[in-house]
Amino acid sequence: MIFTMFKRLKKFLVGKPLTNEQIEGEKFGILWGLPILSSDAISSVAYAGQEMLIVLIPAIGMLAFSNMAILSSAIIILLIVLVISYRQTIECYPNGGGAYIVAKDNMGVLAGVTAGSALSVDYVLTVAVSISSGVEQIVSAFAPLHAFKVEICVVLIILLMIGNLRGISESSKMFGIPAYAFIFAILAMIVTGVFRIMNGQVPSPPSIAEGTPYAGMALFVLMLRAFSNGCTALTGIEAVSNAVPNFKEPSAKHAKSVLVILALIILVLFGGTSFLAQYFKVNPLTQGAVLVVMAKEIFNGGFMFYFVVATTFTILILAANTAFSGFPMLISVMAKEGYAPRQLSMRGDRLSYDNGIVLLSVSAIILVIMFNATVSSLIGLYAIGVFISFTLSQSGMFLKWMRHKGDHWQLKAFINGFGAVLTTFAMFVIAFTKFHEGAWIVVILIPTMIFGMLKVKKHYAAVVKQLRIKHEDYDTAVEKKVYRNRVIIPIESINKSSVRALRYAKTISDNVVAFSVAIDTEAAKELQQRYDHLNVEDIPLFIKYSPFRQVVEPLLEFIESAEYDYQKGDMITVIVPQFVVKKWWHRFLHNNTREFLERELLKHKHIVVSVMPLQLKDDDEVLKQV
Amino acid sequence: MIFTMFKRLKKFLVGKPLTNEQIEGEKFGILWGLPILSSDAISSVAYAGQEMLIVLIPAIGMLAFSNMAILSSAIIILLIVLVISYRQTIECYPNGGGAYIVAKDNMGVLAGVTAGSALSVDYVLTVAVSISSGVEQIVSAFAPLHAFKVEICVVLIILLMIGNLRGISESSKMFGIPAYAFIFAILAMIVTGVFRIMNGQVPSPPSIAEGTPYAGMALFVLMLRAFSNGCTALTGIEAVSNAVPNFKEPSAKHAKSVLVILALIILVLFGGTSFLAQYFKVNPLTQGAVLVVMAKEIFNGGFMFYFVVATTFTILILAANTAFSGFPMLISVMAKEGYAPRQLSMRGDRLSYDNGIVLLSVSAIILVIMFNATVSSLIGLYAIGVFISFTLSQSGMFLKWMRHKGDHWQLKAFINGFGAVLTTFAMFVIAFTKFHEGAWIVVILIPTMIFGMLKVKKHYAAVVKQLRIKHEDYDTAVEKKVYRNRVIIPIESINKSSVRALRYAKTISDNVVAFSVAIDTEAAKELQQRYDHLNVEDIPLFIKYSPFRQVVEPLLEFIESAEYDYQKGDMITVIVPQFVVKKWWHRFLHNNTREFLERELLKHKHIVVSVMPLQLKDDDEVLKQV
Repeated sequence: MIFTMFKRLKKFLVGKPLTNEQIEGEKFGILWGLPILSSDAISSVAYAGQEMLIVLIPAIGMLAFSNMAILSSAIIILLIVLVISYRQTIECYPNGGGAYIVAKDNMGVLAGVTAGSALSVDYVLTVAVSISSGVEQIVSAFAPLHAFKVEICVVLIILLMIGNLRGISESSKMFGIPAYAFIFAILAMIVTGVFRIMNGQVPSPPSIAEGTPYAGMALFVLMLRAFSNGCTALTGIEAVSNAVPNFKEPSAKHAKSVLVILALIILVLFGGTSFLAQYFKVNPLTQGAVLVVMAKEIFNGGFMFYFVVATTFTILILAANTAFSGFPMLISVMAKEGYAPRQLSMRGDRLSYDNGIVLLSVSAIILVIMFNATVSSLIGLYAIGVFISFTLSQSGMFLKWMRHKGDHWQLKAFINGFGAVLTTFAMFVIAFTKFHEGAWIVVILIPTMIFGMLKVKKHYAAVVKQLRIKHEDYDTAVEKKVYRNRVIIPIESINKSSVRALRYAKTISDNVVAFSVAIDTEAAKELQQRYDHLNVEDIPLFIKYSPFRQVVEPLLEFIESAEYDYQKGDMITVIVPQFVVKKWWHRFLHNNTREFLERELLKHKHIVVSVMPLQLKDDDEVLKQV
Repeated sequence: MIFTMFKRLKKFLVGKPLTNEQIEGEKFGILWGLPILSSDAISSVAYAGQEMLIVLIPAIGMLAFSNMAILSSAIIILLIVLVISYRQTIECYPNGGGAYIVAKDNMGVLAGVTAGSALSVDYVLTVAVSISSGVEQIVSAFAPLHAFKVEICVVLIILLMIGNLRGISESSKMFGIPAYAFIFAILAMIVTGVFRIMNGQVPSPPSIAEGTPYAGMALFVLMLRAFSNGCTALTGIEAVSNAVPNFKEPSAKHAKSVLVILALIILVLFGGTSFLAQYFKVNPLTQGAVLVVMAKEIFNGGFMFYFVVATTFTILILAANTAFSGFPMLISVMAKEGYAPRQLSMRGDRLSYDNGIVLLSVSAIILVIMFNATVSSLIGLYAIGVFISFTLSQSGMFLKWMRHKGDHWQLKAFINGFGAVLTTFAMFVIAFTKFHEGAWIVVILIPTMIFGMLKVKKHYAAVVKQLRIKHEDYDTAVEKKVYRNRVIIPIESINKSSVRALRYAKTISDNVVAFSVAIDTEAAKELQQRYDHLNVEDIPLFIKYSPFRQVVEPLLEFIESAEYDYQKGDMITVIVPQFVVKKWWHRFLHNNTREFLERELLKHKHIVVSVMPLQLKDDDEVLKQV
């Protein structure tokens, strides 16, 4: 009843089930692949630069803006190297070349699982950071919403979850147009902004207190910390190479094109907004989200201002959505190989990986609540995971070229090797500068996950080994053992239910006994008398006195007793009745003895528990009958 | 694993299981029966008078104290009438003469169930009010604890629950001595107080603002409201007559003696403290708990002051404990007769009614949290239930004498009749004056409970009727129907588990089929090939193509198909394998297909689900083997 209601609710929220054939129809080309897979990278325009300023401004004041330009250039160079590197990965791994696959293929299981853990953590953070940043944009524009920041984030994650449970294609198209709208909006803002700068219309920025004059090592460390925050602009590139099979054929070609377009877009948007920031000098610590404040200045708070806010918010939601296709896909690959619970590898009714989607949503909600939906707090955990997987992926590719050679392998090895060196450098920078700001959580979490994944794999391997039939036994396996098939029927009282069980037992075996426990001798005597009236001489009744009023223990004792004469190889079927009730609350009116009995008996080898249902009729109907 | 841990925890908290024979040893005589059964009534000294003053003082100021004396006398008269009435009940109902039994016996099911509901509500309130009042005494003496009032209450209820799960006798003796200590403490306070009054040592009371001069109807209504609060002094008398079988033989005699001693104690303590209140004029609204404040005055805050606080606190805890023996006993009687879920009628390992104890504790905790552990708020809900059951019980006894006569029946009928009239009057007074202060909750709750109880009874009656074997069919019931016994084995892949199922199936039937669903034709072909290798010609394999990747629906369709040729009367056994794992977390690594399959199949008549366990070995052990 409750179950049916749940099914109906699910159908309403999630839509009708799709068949397997419909998988092909759910794939996308460049037009829709770009928004759904690269919005994570594109959207980081909204926070990467801003989080650099948040580190720099309190320390070096106005100097922050010129230093930001230098750091932005460094990050853009890193982006270009990564895109070239990843195009090579896509070519080699047309079935999805995430860091997990690449690392595992070329550097072994441990590297693969490490990359997998790092990426998993990162997908969760993508959702938490993007949603928190999206809501930050909104509350910067509409201050009264500030009090409900966390609540809004949680609702948004739940909506994304439902959307994604409905299936891939629908969500990609639903979410596709606003991605282009964002690109258009920011381009319009950059063009208008540059035009106004050229006309000398830049307002005098609010004065920012000069920080202590930083220099030498101190300045260098400060720059590295800002750089670490800026590196979050590069998250999301992985998504494209991980999701190659999601593209229409030729999928590798489509994926590679998407990667290049993506790089160009980031170049223009990130570069452009960094350029504007030097002139408009927004202080995110006092004024709110940088993009929103700049848009207000540039467009004088008109329609285009609201357009920028709306599309920025939307692209950040899309960024979170990237993780909703990336994470379940990654985790399903790992689950299929036995490194994660098998349930994560199963497609749901709408052909999405339901369990993965739910796991991602729940984890992200926990993070958002823990860190109060604050981007500056979450950012400390964010980039480390991405750069661990970048490093493993690039190193894996480098080793691949070195081993397998092929056309132009020297150039290819150099590209991936150079990528590996850069990302390794960035990884250490992030780990050290961000350790105290949350990276330590990830540094502890990833080894824990690796440990768990290896344990899971071990369990599955052990199960497979136990279930495997030896080749030489194969064709005689079923005939091999013939055992005595015996039946025990636990009886509480003599009624239609126990009579049905007796009747059934006789058809499946000729070695049947009934068994009962009694609290006192009087009850035992009465039961025996009633049983004798049934005239079933071929099924003896054994009544045991149970001082603790329990059934399982006396039953197991009985089976082991000389009286029952259990022989090695005997197979015992215990028949337990189960009432199937009409109304949901009726189940609270019956003992759960059956479930307890079933659970306890199943612990014992050579005991089969046969559950015999008795459908109870409607109360009124029964009582009406004469 | 988790289950075992829970069992161990329970054993540690609750103690070792007791056998049925030990029930007799758990009964008590007058010495221990008095404290455990009458502490509810005795302890009301701590709040009944005080709650009268809380109503009176804001309205009529100093006049409150003289009016309180009049009302206290009225309540003491009511007490005496009730005790005499209830002695007659105990004599007639030596097996426990709670209002439920008396009302049901003499006035039918509806009256009985009404009394039962009213009493149930009341037991819960006894716990909530007594605990809240107990904690109020403590925080009146130690102000810093005030902030933790609700938390302390919840912890105390949980401790009482654990104590009572440990069994009756232990708790009665553990809690017996402090009850006597309380009686001694209050007697000492009364004697000292009277001595000081006679020596003119009464301090001048803090000035209390004169209220508006009340007169006529307004004063009368005010007095009635105060009287309603005072009536809470009479709660708990029921407990003695309800628990007659808990006394040692001769149990009726012991119970009657306890009732008389109880009345004497209340007379002295309630009368005495009311008398003192007239001289010491404590204002509970500003000064805190009346008993505590008076004790401070009388004993000048010395040792005896702390002794009064400690024993008052303890007796109130004991009062709550009364409900822990009364409620489970009442509800178990009702459950045995089918008016409450059967689980409530079962004794636990320590011979207490575990489920009833837990139900009471949880309900009381909810109330305490809802009403913020404030006696003045809870008191509005309290007395109405008691007086509903008093009225029903007395009316029932009156009707009993009128119908069955016997020795001195006229006198006996008069006593119970007079009791009925007085309690009916009090019931209406409480219902009307307290309606807005919470009694409405109870007025709605009781009919709801009655409705539920009658529904439960109906269900059990319908079940019994469905299970009953007709007398004429009795000795041929088992032989009656002979049906085709057929077996279906759902197979996912060919492994040791499916081979075991095939082997087992052959021993229980010669009409066996294997069944599998495949996602595509390729998978189907592969499975069929592997199956053919097993050489089980007598068990055909049916493979169905399942576009929705589900098993249950195709299986049910198959059973209904012409191909399977299901005949009315066929009994189908479906064998489902179940992995039994070694470590608790391993269960998350396997699908719950089995549970889902079992639940869905059991909805269908003539399908027996046989669960075949496969004990998985330890992972390391398996992988070590060659």
